[in-house]
Amino acid sequence: MSSDATRVLVIGADAAGMSAAHQALRTAGSHGRSLQVTVVDKGAHTSYSACGIPYWMAGDVESGDELVARTVEQHREAGIEMRLGTEAVAVDVTSRTVTVRGGQDVDEETLEYDELVVATGAPAIVPAWALRPDGTPYVNVGPVKTLDDGAAWESRFEAAGEGAHVVVVGAGYVGVEVAEAALRRGLGVTVVTRGRGLALLEEEMSEKVAIAMCDAGAEVVLGVEVTGLETATGESGGHRATGVRWEGGGRDADLVVLAIGVRPATGFLRDSGLPMGDNGALLPDEHGRVAPGIWAAGDCCEVRRRIDDRTVFRPLGTHANKLGRVLGDNLAGGSLAFPGVVDTSITRFAACGEYLEIARTGLGLEEAQHAGYDAVALVTEGTTASGYMPEAEPISVWVLACRSTRRLLGVQVVGGHGAGKRVDTAAAVLWSEGTVDDLAWMDLAYAPPFSTAWDILQIAARRLAERL
Amino acid sequence: MSSDATRVLVIGADAAGMSAAHQALRTAGSHGRSLQVTVVDKGAHTSYSACGIPYWMAGDVESGDELVARTVEQHREAGIEMRLGTEAVAVDVTSRTVTVRGGQDVDEETLEYDELVVATGAPAIVPAWALRPDGTPYVNVGPVKTLDDGAAWESRFEAAGEGAHVVVVGAGYVGVEVAEAALRRGLGVTVVTRGRGLALLEEEMSEKVAIAMCDAGAEVVLGVEVTGLETATGESGGHRATGVRWEGGGRDADLVVLAIGVRPATGFLRDSGLPMGDNGALLPDEHGRVAPGIWAAGDCCEVRRRIDDRTVFRPLGTHANKLGRVLGDNLAGGSLAFPGVVDTSITRFAACGEYLEIARTGLGLEEAQHAGYDAVALVTEGTTASGYMPEAEPISVWVLACRSTRRLLGVQVVGGHGAGKRVDTAAAVLWSEGTVDDLAWMDLAYAPPFSTAWDILQIAARRLAERL
Repeated sequence: MSSDATRVLVIGADAAGMSAAHQALRTAGSHGRSLQVTVVDKGAHTSYSACGIPYWMAGDVESGDELVARTVEQHREAGIEMRLGTEAVAVDVTSRTVTVRGGQDVDEETLEYDELVVATGAPAIVPAWALRPDGTPYVNVGPVKTLDDGAAWESRFEAAGEGAHVVVVGAGYVGVEVAEAALRRGLGVTVVTRGRGLALLEEEMSEKVAIAMCDAGAEVVLGVEVTGLETATGESGGHRATGVRWEGGGRDADLVVLAIGVRPATGFLRDSGLPMGDNGALLPDEHGRVAPGIWAAGDCCEVRRRIDDRTVFRPLGTHANKLGRVLGDNLAGGSLAFPGVVDTSITRFAACGEYLEIARTGLGLEEAQHAGYDAVALVTEGTTASGYMPEAEPISVWVLACRSTRRLLGVQVVGGHGAGKRVDTAAAVLWSEGTVDDLAWMDLAYAPPFSTAWDILQIAARRLAERL
Repeated sequence: MSSDATRVLVIGADAAGMSAAHQALRTAGSHGRSLQVTVVDKGAHTSYSACGIPYWMAGDVESGDELVARTVEQHREAGIEMRLGTEAVAVDVTSRTVTVRGGQDVDEETLEYDELVVATGAPAIVPAWALRPDGTPYVNVGPVKTLDDGAAWESRFEAAGEGAHVVVVGAGYVGVEVAEAALRRGLGVTVVTRGRGLALLEEEMSEKVAIAMCDAGAEVVLGVEVTGLETATGESGGHRATGVRWEGGGRDADLVVLAIGVRPATGFLRDSGLPMGDNGALLPDEHGRVAPGIWAAGDCCEVRRRIDDRTVFRPLGTHANKLGRVLGDNLAGGSLAFPGVVDTSITRFAACGEYLEIARTGLGLEEAQHAGYDAVALVTEGTTASGYMPEAEPISVWVLACRSTRRLLGVQVVGGHGAGKRVDTAAAVLWSEGTVDDLAWMDLAYAPPFSTAWDILQIAARRLAERL
C-alpha cells in the first residue's frame, strides 16, 4: 500500500460497511485513487444476514455460518484490514480520529482516518423491564438481531420441551417471522403488540395476518403494552422470566422474544455535532456523505422516501446493501447517487397449515393524508392464479391513490404463494410516479398458473380508478 | 328494450366479445344510451379460457365447465341475446348487415346492425399435411384451442396406454404446456419445432427450457419442419396417424398435437375493404374502432407495442379482456383508450421433477436492432430466494437495454418458483420508458424466502448497466 493512500476507516462490518469497503476498493483504481481500508466492528461476525435468523430459528437454516455472506478471511483477501471485537466509542471530527476499545492488546486506542464510514447498524431495543435489576439479561429473554442472538434462540428452541410457550413482544416483521419459527418448532406462541395489528400494514390488511396466526394456533393480543416480566422464585429465582405482564393482565411464558424494533447505533457520535434524525439516525446525502470526511450507510441512517420526499427510518438489508455500494463508489471518486426508496417490504407467515405472503410499498393512508394527498383506498379480493387451477390461493390487495391526480400512492398485499412479490410491480409504478390507471392497464404476465386474465393487481387498481 | 335502442351485433362469444358486450351494457346508461346487444358465435361455448386447456389435459382441471368464466345463461341474464351455433359468413359494411349461417330454423339469415363488433378470435392453424386426403382430421391428430379440442385431448390422453407417445409440433407456449401435460400423464413426449428453441425467447434462455424438457424425459427436436404424417395401413388405415415425417427423418407417434400457432378468423371480411395486417388481423384504433360502425377486439386483432410503436399479433387472453372492455366502453359512449402492450407473456414447464417458470417482456435483441436501438444484452444467473433458504432455486435473467439512452428494452426470465412474475416489474419499467438504472436501483421487496438482498432482477440490470 503506498504511503499516500487515503486512509478509510469503516465502523461496522455488516452489509453497508462491507459493501462500501469492497465497492471503494473495486473502483478506486479507475479514479486514480489509492485506498487503505480498515474496518472495525465490536462483534465477531461480518456480513451476515440478520433477516435470515428467524429461518435459522425455524430450522430452515442449519447454522449461523450459512447466514454469513462473506467471512473475515474473504474480506482480508480483498485487501481490507479487519479488526473485530473492536468498538468505536468516540469520534473527533476535527482531528479526524476515532477512539476504539477492545481488540488486540490494547484497551483503548486512537485511530486516524482521512475518510470515516459510519455503518454501525441498529441494534435491537431491549427495554429496561426486560433486564434483571443488575442490568444483565434473563436467560430465557432476548432480542433477535445478531448471530449470537440467533445461536441463543436456536439453543433455547431446541431445549424447550413439548408444550413450552413463547411470548413474542412486538408484531413487526420480526415478530411475525419469529412466531412462524416457534410454531413450526412445535412451540406455543403468543404475540403481544401495543398496536392494533401488524406494524406497517393498514388495519384491514393486518387483520388477515392476525386471523392466520390464530388459525395456526397462536394467540394474538392486540393493543397491549408489555410493562414487565414475571420471574421465578426458588432456586432459579431471578435468572429466568416466567411470563410477561401488562396493565390488567399477563401471560405465562417459557421464553420471551423481544421484537419491538431497533435503534441506530450512533450514541458514540453524540458529541460529534453531526446532524441526526429524531431517533438518532444519521442523514447522509444521496452520495452517502454526512459531513466533510464523514460518510454513513445502512441501518444507522434514514433514507429518503420518494413519494413524499421525507426521510424515514427503514433499517432493511436491501437498503443497506445499496447505500453501502453508493457510498463506496463516491468515496473512491465516483458519482453514484442513491435514488431513495418507495417503502417496499415483504415477509410471510407460514406455519401449521397457514401460508400468507405479506408485503407493502408506498404510503399508508395516514401518511398520504399527512403528505397532503387527497387519498382514497380500497381492498380487493381475488386469487393468485386462475380460479380453476390448483395453484389458485386467495389474495387481498389494498390500493391507495390520490383522487385529484390519480397518482398511485401505495399498495399492500396479503395472500398465498406468489402474492408478495407482486408489490414489486406496484413499487415500479410508484418509482416512475405513475397513476392507478397505469397499474390497471399495463401489460402484466398472464397464464393460468400465475394469474387471472386481469391480474389481481390490475383488478384492484381498476376498481379504485373507477371510484376516483 | 326501447325501439330506438342502438343495435349492437357482436361476432364471437369469447373473452373480447363478451367483455365488450357487458362493458357496453354496464356503462351505456351513464352516457344516456340504450343498447340492444346480440352475440353470435359459431361454436357452442362462451367465455372460456383457452389458456386453461393444457391444464385440463394435464389433469389439473376436472372438466371443461370449469374453464367457462360465464355461461350462456349468465350472459342472457345480463340482457344479451345469445345465438350460438351461428356463423357469420359475410359482412356488408354499406348496408350494415351480416349474413349468418346455421342456428335455429333457418340456414342463412341476414342480421342488421348499427354497430358491429368483430371478436372472432384466432383458430389454431391446421396445415394441409395434418388432414386426411378428404380434408377430415385424423382421429389422433389435432390442435389445442377450443373446448371441443380440450375434450378430445382429455379423452385421447385418458385412453392412451402406458408407453404411448405424443409428438408435439411447435414449441410456442402451447407446445411447452402440452408437453408438460403429456409428461405429467405418464406419456412419452417429443417436441418438434422448426425454430432453434422456444418461440418468443432468446436462444440463450430458450436452451434452458429445452434442457429441462430433456431432463424430464422428453425428446426435443430443433430446427426441423414437419412436412407430413405417417398413417396406418390395415384395418384402421387412413384414420390414424402413426408418426410425423420431416425431411430426412421422422418420429413414431400415437398422438400428434398441432401447436404451430393461430390465425385471425377474419376470412369472412375479405370483401369488406377493412384494413388488415399481414396475417389478416384487424387493426383497431386505441378505442377499438376499425371503421365507422365497426369495432374489433381480441385475438383477431393486432395490438400496438409501445416500445417500438409497431402493431404486433399477440393473441393473448389478457389483451382480449382489456381490448374488449375498452371497446365496450367506447361503443357505449365512453372514452377509454387501450394504451398498448409491452409484449409480456409467461408460461411454465413443470413435469417429472423439473419446474421452470418462463416469461418475457419487451423486445428481443433482433427486434430492438430492427427498431434502431443500439441494443446490448446480458444473461445473469442467480437464485429466487436467499441462498441459504430452502426456497432458493436457480433463476436466469436476460436484460436488454439501449447503450446510448440506457433505456430498458426487454427482460426474459427462466427459473424456479417465483421467477416468472418478476417480469411484471420489468414490464412496469418498460411501461414508463425507464432505464436499466431504474430497474437496478428501485426499491424491490426483499426477505430471505423471496429474494436475495439485491433482487436478481436488480443484479442483472446493474451488471448490464455497468457494461453500457
